[in-house]
Amino acid sequence: MYRQSAQDLDEIDGNRGAATMEASVDRIGTIPLFELLAPPLRKQIEGIGELVTAEQDDLLSRQGAMPGFLHILLEGQVALTSAMADGITAVVSVVHPGAHFILSSVLAELPYLMTARAVMRSRVLAIDGPSLLRLAEHEPSLANALLHSVSHEFRGMVQQVRDLKLRTAAQRLGCYLLDRVNDSKAREADFRLPFEKGLLAALIGCGQETLSRAFAALRASGVETHGSLVILHDIPRLRMLAAPDGLEAP
Amino acid sequence: MYRQSAQDLDEIDGNRGAATMEASVDRIGTIPLFELLAPPLRKQIEGIGELVTAEQDDLLSRQGAMPGFLHILLEGQVALTSAMADGITAVVSVVHPGAHFILSSVLAELPYLMTARAVMRSRVLAIDGPSLLRLAEHEPSLANALLHSVSHEFRGMVQQVRDLKLRTAAQRLGCYLLDRVNDSKAREADFRLPFEKGLLAALIGCGQETLSRAFAALRASGVETHGSLVILHDIPRLRMLAAPDGLEAP
Repeated sequence: MYRQSAQDLDEIDGNRGAATMEASVDRIGTIPLFELLAPPLRKQIEGIGELVTAEQDDLLSRQGAMPGFLHILLEGQVALTSAMADGITAVVSVVHPGAHFILSSVLAELPYLMTARAVMRSRVLAIDGPSLLRLAEHEPSLANALLHSVSHEFRGMVQQVRDLKLRTAAQRLGCYLLDRVNDSKAREADFRLPFEKGLLAALIGCGQETLSRAFAALRASGVETHGSLVILHDIPRLRMLAAPDGLEAP
Repeated sequence: MYRQSAQDLDEIDGNRGAATMEASVDRIGTIPLFELLAPPLRKQIEGIGELVTAEQDDLLSRQGAMPGFLHILLEGQVALTSAMADGITAVVSVVHPGAHFILSSVLAELPYLMTARAVMRSRVLAIDGPSLLRLAEHEPSLANALLHSVSHEFRGMVQQVRDLKLRTAAQRLGCYLLDRVNDSKAREADFRLPFEKGLLAALIGCGQETLSRAFAALRASGVETHGSLVILHDIPRLRMLAAPDGLEAP
């Protein structure tokens, strides 16, 4: 089980001041969430955003706090975790550059459901949440862009719920590894895990021991590991076991 | 594991013709999703909706099909299920009157992620999806109402993901039972399960045997069952074991 760091947000607030110096003007048009908006509207969003640099293990938002910002990850990697009262923590997802977090809390104007922690040094665009909401109230194109985005995110969550209910840990790990392969026709691949195995276990939704057993179970399907290096010797065979499928099935 | 019925949508389409006769005019204002909209806009939504009666086991939408309608449940109960390629099916959620399904698919204009099946005879308002989207493009109040709703649904999914990753089946069952108690100060309660145990197991995310073991494990916390009748003898004790918490924790 992954335990969250006790790092304080004040550190980031300190960073924020310095980072604001840098202009975010050229960034908005390259962010998928905003790319279809008209230039004057993008300009308005620029006006309510600022660049933030987070060091490894910095917290960008804390579960239970009211949402101040919609964050867009420009560089680095961020883990979204949700904790129970006793402190044990599940990783709900890992955010990659170009994606945002945590839109649903900003839109619902309810406390953050998840804590966002930089897994590595990361650069983030922080857009003022209340100002974004006020903009959306009068700009249907922005409201519809946000709608489209949160609907896609919702679909990802449905898939995760289904996988947790129906797939074994080995199958979920297999699907995760197959997702790391960019070439859909490849029969072999090798890559490094983008984060440590504790985080991977929490993302897959199992303990570290179960993760080790899952890696052992996948060995028969041609999965070899050396530390963070993963070699897939027989992708079609792994696919048979992990049975990834579009949600369009059956 | 719950297996979906092979009932055909045509039956419902047959019903739809007859049901359209009934006016949906007075319904729109009472639906939480639309209650804050201005009357002229509600009138427009009335114009793209029709009432549908679904018999038990009728399918209202089918996983993989393009979304034709946003459904709003007026009476009855509907289960949303997601199946894998081999046909095994997880219940993602059970819809109660006043709630809608499946908004995210309608908004994303992507195939339904889930099959919606009437658990009992149900009355549903079916709103034409593409027409609703066109309305939202020009009506920020509608777009923002949809945004607010899908954001709340997203939060529910995050909670479910976290519970599946962190809680035991007995704890998830305990939380489900505690949710059935309306009086937050009650120390005892009894009620009937609103659906059969196969559906409950699939909703909790376990097999029927695990569900039986979970009920057995909860006996020590004062949970007694006779068929569908559930008696909670000691709610504070059950709460200690199941540890339900707001997402605001820790």
